[in-house]
Amino acid sequence: MHKNFKNIDKVIYGRGSFNQLDVLLSEKRAEHNRFFLFIVDHYFKGKELEKRLPVKPEDVLLFIDVNPEEPTTDQVDQIRDCILKKKGLPSGIVGIGGGSVMDIAKACSLMFTNEGSSSKYQGLNLIKKPGIYHLGVPTISGTGAECSMTAVLTGPEKKLGLKCDWTVFNQVILDPDLISSVPTDWWFYTGMDTFIHCVESENGKLNNAFSHAYAEQSLKLCRDVFINPGCGQNAANDEKLMIASMMGGLSLTYSEVGVCHALSYGLSKILGTRHCYANCLAFNHLEDYYPEGVREFRQMLVKHKIVLPQHLSRTWTEDQISQMASVAYNLTHMWLHAIGPDWKDKISHESIKNLFKRL
Amino acid sequence: MHKNFKNIDKVIYGRGSFNQLDVLLSEKRAEHNRFFLFIVDHYFKGKELEKRLPVKPEDVLLFIDVNPEEPTTDQVDQIRDCILKKKGLPSGIVGIGGGSVMDIAKACSLMFTNEGSSSKYQGLNLIKKPGIYHLGVPTISGTGAECSMTAVLTGPEKKLGLKCDWTVFNQVILDPDLISSVPTDWWFYTGMDTFIHCVESENGKLNNAFSHAYAEQSLKLCRDVFINPGCGQNAANDEKLMIASMMGGLSLTYSEVGVCHALSYGLSKILGTRHCYANCLAFNHLEDYYPEGVREFRQMLVKHKIVLPQHLSRTWTEDQISQMASVAYNLTHMWLHAIGPDWKDKISHESIKNLFKRL
Repeated sequence: MHKNFKNIDKVIYGRGSFNQLDVLLSEKRAEHNRFFLFIVDHYFKGKELEKRLPVKPEDVLLFIDVNPEEPTTDQVDQIRDCILKKKGLPSGIVGIGGGSVMDIAKACSLMFTNEGSSSKYQGLNLIKKPGIYHLGVPTISGTGAECSMTAVLTGPEKKLGLKCDWTVFNQVILDPDLISSVPTDWWFYTGMDTFIHCVESENGKLNNAFSHAYAEQSLKLCRDVFINPGCGQNAANDEKLMIASMMGGLSLTYSEVGVCHALSYGLSKILGTRHCYANCLAFNHLEDYYPEGVREFRQMLVKHKIVLPQHLSRTWTEDQISQMASVAYNLTHMWLHAIGPDWKDKISHESIKNLFKRL
Repeated sequence: MHKNFKNIDKVIYGRGSFNQLDVLLSEKRAEHNRFFLFIVDHYFKGKELEKRLPVKPEDVLLFIDVNPEEPTTDQVDQIRDCILKKKGLPSGIVGIGGGSVMDIAKACSLMFTNEGSSSKYQGLNLIKKPGIYHLGVPTISGTGAECSMTAVLTGPEKKLGLKCDWTVFNQVILDPDLISSVPTDWWFYTGMDTFIHCVESENGKLNNAFSHAYAEQSLKLCRDVFINPGCGQNAANDEKLMIASMMGGLSLTYSEVGVCHALSYGLSKILGTRHCYANCLAFNHLEDYYPEGVREFRQMLVKHKIVLPQHLSRTWTEDQISQMASVAYNLTHMWLHAIGPDWKDKISHESIKNLFKRL
């Protein structure tokens, strides 16, 4: 059986396209209780972008601080419960921010129409009913959350996405202007999420002509943005990074992430480390699995004067390391892709612990 | 205003994925009058693929001979009228074939729910109501019709697409096995449609980071299929060509075709020449506009021993050439992209006639 993947319904790309948001929403304002829920990264509070939000008096504007931890099932449940109680069912949701805000907006869209805690729905096709209209505006590029079928949440038991056709955004606005002010370190970490998942996509069993074409082009764009002559944060590279992120995400529709994401999920679940940063921490020590990718990654670190902390594992207890290894070990689909059907002959709880101890 | 483009709702890619067609249709069979309309390229009548069609007793199977001319508004109207009269509204339409069959299936989907002749709706957003469910299975790759927002038809007055969000397929199955038996000449002509529209997309005013990323990767794949070492019709290249076609089509969502397609439309409208072949006839003489692309194109011709007829224009009347030039001249959006806002200073009815006389 080949995957049948759901695309974003509609996409606008281009510098200044954020200005079209108001018109897009006006077409949907007649639905349900006639208000929109805006979920916006706290970073933009008081900034220029706040003034440009087409928020009407009846709308709800929530600024969300996505630091220091990854989005949780509790967080999504609370937003849903609070809005339903105060105002009822929104006409739709607008998510403006990075991968975490994208995931929260996607998850809320589903949870407004599916009862109980979102932790019940962590997995593939567990959602029962279509969500409400949801529109995503990425302001940091790299995670691919703008085009993925998954809203990744950390729940009481696991870090795992709500994955189904209805998770995918109805509309995405890709405006490269919006990512121009991302602080350099987060520009780097999130961009590296794309770079890393493309390396993982390419170096695994599921890679096919579809995922390869997208990953290859995304990697080419990443190299332009992060290492080739002319690299760095500038207008032309903002345009490229936004496309690299989308194409990296689309590569994963037919392939999978691998060893790095397995470790990264362990870090995020046990220590709450942000996803893109956790990827960078782990990838830096995975030369055994991705020699060429790690070599390029280290060149990029040097180029942009990014210094990753070393010897982190010395501050972790043996029990924490063991818990992280358990989280990573249980991500079977990643190991199957990265190593193959005989992965259990090559990877053990102990060997994963040793990988964590490199960090 | 930036374009807001509609994606194909769902895509399955992979060798053998055609076998999933039956399951996909079963989910839709409860709609309307509970039958599917299959529109299949006549080429497959009596072939292996015919036996694999999941046609139920209540369904209608139409084999369509797409030679020698391009799909017409009359043809679409007749199919619609005949099916509505005999069986009522189908649950959906399955189109299996090349670009012409894709366009007929897309147009029929719309015309089952929009009254009058399809010629009334040639243009942008003239369609009033959503069409019925339609699923496309390309068996020749290159036109990009599988992912475009347009169903191109030749009408009494013009060759122009029915273009709107609802034109786009609800589902596409991309099975590289299905293109393995395409005769070499048509494999070449249709593949060149992708190559040519990517060259046109890249060499024009509308090209942006989005269209460039797609066109660049599509061109790379085309070179693997048609000129690089290992080129030719084989399993690996069938996989690549199918992706090249899709990516070439997606490149055009933010860019435009150019001089070659303008001439090609003239040929098709006045002489009925098939689209991809007409593109090849015209492109071969457009070295003034696309020097690098035409050079590569000619290398590909030689590589695959494709001989295009010369001195065709000697068999055309002055009046025919004038009519073709009028068709081409009126495709304003193509000239605006290819030449720029001052195109009328550089291109005239007479200069276009001279281009046709090169053929």
